[in-house]
Amino acid sequence: MFSHSRVLCPDLQQKIMTADQAADFIHDGDTVGMSGFTGAGYPKALPAALVNKAQMERDLRKTFKINLWTGASTAPELDGVMADAHEINLRLPYQSDPICREQINSGQMHYIDLHLSEVSQYAWSGFLGELNVAVIEVAGIHEDGRIIPSSSVGNNKTWVEQADKVILEVNSQQSLKLEGMHDIYYGTALPPHRKPILLNEPADRIGSQYLEIPKEKIVAIVETSAPDRNSPFSSPDAVSEQIAANILEFFEHEIKRGRLPANLLPLQSGVGNIPNAVLSGLDRGGYKNLTAFTEVIQDGMLQMLKSGTLSVASATAFSLSPDALKELNENIDFYREKIILRQQDISNNPEIARRLGIIAMNGLIEADIYGNVNSTHIMGTRMMNGIGGSGDFARNGYLSIFMTPSTAKNGAISAIVPMVSHVDHTEHDVKVIVTEQGLADLRGLSPRQRAKVVINNCAHPDFKEQLLDYHERACASGRGMHTPHLLSEALSWHERYEQTGSMRLA
Amino acid sequence: MFSHSRVLCPDLQQKIMTADQAADFIHDGDTVGMSGFTGAGYPKALPAALVNKAQMERDLRKTFKINLWTGASTAPELDGVMADAHEINLRLPYQSDPICREQINSGQMHYIDLHLSEVSQYAWSGFLGELNVAVIEVAGIHEDGRIIPSSSVGNNKTWVEQADKVILEVNSQQSLKLEGMHDIYYGTALPPHRKPILLNEPADRIGSQYLEIPKEKIVAIVETSAPDRNSPFSSPDAVSEQIAANILEFFEHEIKRGRLPANLLPLQSGVGNIPNAVLSGLDRGGYKNLTAFTEVIQDGMLQMLKSGTLSVASATAFSLSPDALKELNENIDFYREKIILRQQDISNNPEIARRLGIIAMNGLIEADIYGNVNSTHIMGTRMMNGIGGSGDFARNGYLSIFMTPSTAKNGAISAIVPMVSHVDHTEHDVKVIVTEQGLADLRGLSPRQRAKVVINNCAHPDFKEQLLDYHERACASGRGMHTPHLLSEALSWHERYEQTGSMRLA
Repeated sequence: MFSHSRVLCPDLQQKIMTADQAADFIHDGDTVGMSGFTGAGYPKALPAALVNKAQMERDLRKTFKINLWTGASTAPELDGVMADAHEINLRLPYQSDPICREQINSGQMHYIDLHLSEVSQYAWSGFLGELNVAVIEVAGIHEDGRIIPSSSVGNNKTWVEQADKVILEVNSQQSLKLEGMHDIYYGTALPPHRKPILLNEPADRIGSQYLEIPKEKIVAIVETSAPDRNSPFSSPDAVSEQIAANILEFFEHEIKRGRLPANLLPLQSGVGNIPNAVLSGLDRGGYKNLTAFTEVIQDGMLQMLKSGTLSVASATAFSLSPDALKELNENIDFYREKIILRQQDISNNPEIARRLGIIAMNGLIEADIYGNVNSTHIMGTRMMNGIGGSGDFARNGYLSIFMTPSTAKNGAISAIVPMVSHVDHTEHDVKVIVTEQGLADLRGLSPRQRAKVVINNCAHPDFKEQLLDYHERACASGRGMHTPHLLSEALSWHERYEQTGSMRLA
Repeated sequence: MFSHSRVLCPDLQQKIMTADQAADFIHDGDTVGMSGFTGAGYPKALPAALVNKAQMERDLRKTFKINLWTGASTAPELDGVMADAHEINLRLPYQSDPICREQINSGQMHYIDLHLSEVSQYAWSGFLGELNVAVIEVAGIHEDGRIIPSSSVGNNKTWVEQADKVILEVNSQQSLKLEGMHDIYYGTALPPHRKPILLNEPADRIGSQYLEIPKEKIVAIVETSAPDRNSPFSSPDAVSEQIAANILEFFEHEIKRGRLPANLLPLQSGVGNIPNAVLSGLDRGGYKNLTAFTEVIQDGMLQMLKSGTLSVASATAFSLSPDALKELNENIDFYREKIILRQQDISNNPEIARRLGIIAMNGLIEADIYGNVNSTHIMGTRMMNGIGGSGDFARNGYLSIFMTPSTAKNGAISAIVPMVSHVDHTEHDVKVIVTEQGLADLRGLSPRQRAKVVINNCAHPDFKEQLLDYHERACASGRGMHTPHLLSEALSWHERYEQTGSMRLA
């Protein structure tokens, strides 16, 4: 039983040290794989210790920069402090930190934006180079060495397998009742040795509750006591509520037509206010026994589990507001029976996404009239966050839904444009686009048919005429009627915004 | 035993009729699912009969147009004659016919360009509307009703399951020794009832040798005798040979570094002269026991099977030159042990592509300096053929290689451009780009790092300076350094080509 220490294994107790001592195992130029996925389960102490170390090295006129791999986004205590210290040379596979973003977009940091299901395969196969050190937060270490994972799994299994050295942070603020919630699958292999992943339902367990780490790899253990940092959700605004209502109406329509079962199919949902509004809507919509097979368990899913709308949620991490985290910890015996945390090469696996027939619901930055979606780039050049798992789910699931308010920046930017300035989801992958204006079901439509539906159903009234005018002139140009475009104007809306502060015509 | 007739089942013999009679089962506005994949196994008689029927209807001042679904591309006897008669309202999921293409691009025909693995799921789930009639070529019907599939499988299983009526064409020019080559998997289901597809190696058989069709659905049988129509391959030119050499060198490099096994991983290869040159190169390269898990068996693969370079080839269709078809038929007892033909929702399945770790080799129309690939659109608006299965394999396989000569139209067009005019494969999916100039390995590189490698290794010398100049000015613009672009110039190369006949600066 854990009491004053979470490190019960005698062999490993000897490796307990301060974060500053542990930071000595990390050297300039190293590639470091850290835990952390959407603000959950990231190391709390090592990043700050590395900032100290970088400062000392700089005082000695030495450089100290590392390549930083994680599961996905982390928190200010990791990405924020390390970017602020100019300590990150290359970052992958996802981030959402303001300081990181600024450095990526000013050319100070290289960033590789990867499909989250592919990261472990990339790392295993050596495509990304050598991984020197893994820094992983865990919830506790049993006397016999079994390791209880923390509030996210992400790429932790891969990092500890691939890294030469492992540093563990044992965080006493993570609930010990996380034990048993995880399902770490040890059947993975590189081809040609891969076998079918025998997971048929979101509730299936196919792995171990513990993270296996060879003791000899563990070079340091740091004891910490700090909560995951996540911001509270704001209550859904009218626009989010309307987007949610449009999606719910669509689900009802599909169920009536027999194209979706009455309890839908496993839900994947991005994180944020709009997805949360959709989840709340489902919770009020009389559904029972829904399931989720997704990346992240957010507030809305916890509510749905509580009400019985959702029977099980499989994910790779939590992303809870402080209130929801309190609710989880207070009722964890209830939730732990219904929540499964997996590594991200399983939560996002194409094999499983296609088999389960996931309904993928993700946000977008802009969509074009032909159904291409930009999820990552502002005005074609500046990285926002990254593609995350949306590509894993949108291409391989059963139904892909992309949602957004129809305008941004107080109406100056239209989320529906003639041509997106960057493509993350192609016309082949985007089935449904939703705004507060309405929903465009693009299945079975040719590009010109799609343009009409997207403009009429999704565009804001302020931009409808401008979009129709573009489309009509493109059709009349004689340049090709499959996907009519005027190349000289296709990206002019973005240019106009940069020049005048608005995509509207003067 | 088959002798004078290929229809031995007495119940079905009664349904033998002429193509003109069978055409009466197809009505104006119907959706018709036909067999056919890359010029193999398409119906030879019904399309012409439908052209007659359309003419007669027109003489009576009635319209006759259908929606046409197939496996992939067919031949002039199907797409060509029907498009020429203006008989196709909507076409999916792939085509490569010149008359179709002209009508798609002049706005006379709607075309939906789908990932080939998804078509059956779309059709089963009702996303594409109702399927009225299936027209399927087969090689023979046994006395007990077992049906021997023809030289392609494609979507035939789905069409016969989904259509209200089935018309069979029994083609006596297809080899009867095709019997046993097919593996029609009957474990498919819509979610939530899908189970793992227990295929671990390209050679695994998981289905039936016969196509199951309820007799009561079969409304007509038409006996035909006509060969599949495929064009001869031209011998590889110097450019194709150099592209192949670059890929082969890359494979050797990867094997040396332990990132690929000595017998590689299952190969998927597009069809054409460049892929054929790659296959020939592999055949001369001392490889043994390679495997292929691909869409189409082309000439090069037959050679490789013969020499022992390739131990097995799994596909959904043949696409053989007349000479290779002769070779196949003369030695079919040898080849039938090494060739497996599957339906395209299995040959292209994301589950299997990820598990097997496919090496996907496909052509491209243009790539941009950041690694986005356009596989379908000429100058952003005009459809060439379609995305086919390239998206299934590129996203879900182990390694995606896209190949092209560095220029087109006698050097007027650069295949490497600042920004592609349409995106089919995003920066997240494109691992390797190859031209005769060299190979760009984009794995583990940020967009700006990719730009340097793509320009330096792949661009034609005539366009290198222009591309570097664009990239440098984009970097200097201060607009965002993650994916630097000048939006006003990004598509100007295409405009310049349309205005001056060349992408070169004057």
